Amino acid sequence: MRARIRITLKHGVLDPQGKAIENALASLGFKGVNDVRQGKYIEVDLAEKDEGKARELVEQICKELLANTVIENYAYELVPA
Amino acid sequence: MRARIRITLKHGVLDPQGKAIENALASLGFKGVNDVRQGKYIEVDLAEKDEGKARELVEQICKELLANTVIENYAYELVPA
Repeated sequence: MRARIRITLKHGVLDPQGKAIENALASLGFKGVNDVRQGKYIEVDLAEKDEGKARELVEQICKELLANTVIENYAYELVPA
Repeated sequence: MRARIRITLKHGVLDPQGKAIENALASLGFKGVNDVRQGKYIEVDLAEKDEGKARELVEQICKELLANTVIENYAYELVPA
């Protein structure tokens, strides 16, 4: 299975990259953009075929390595590889 | 609407960040990880309520600013804000 993991800053944590993109969009003339937040996107190809076990593995990977859970949230979906 | 944009390196483009994560997972003892690719994740809050128009705007934003289409692919989904 393949896990598509999104890691985002928690609400209230300053996001200078997102602000920079927002300002760049404004200077390029894009209107109607209220807010931009930048995060990380990580695709992990797993040998595991069982969805429950894959979910457990991805949770562990996110908590132990990918996300700093003090300031970041993670979310993911599993798709067939 | 809110656009959830994923920007990933095209197939064949070297991804040292992804490789670093893959190696870190191996050193932490995670088994069954075949491949890791790192990309960017950007959430854009749009004032636009019409899905078709929002889609057009996001396409333009991706092409003009967020993705380098020579080496990167982009994908997105629109969700209610």
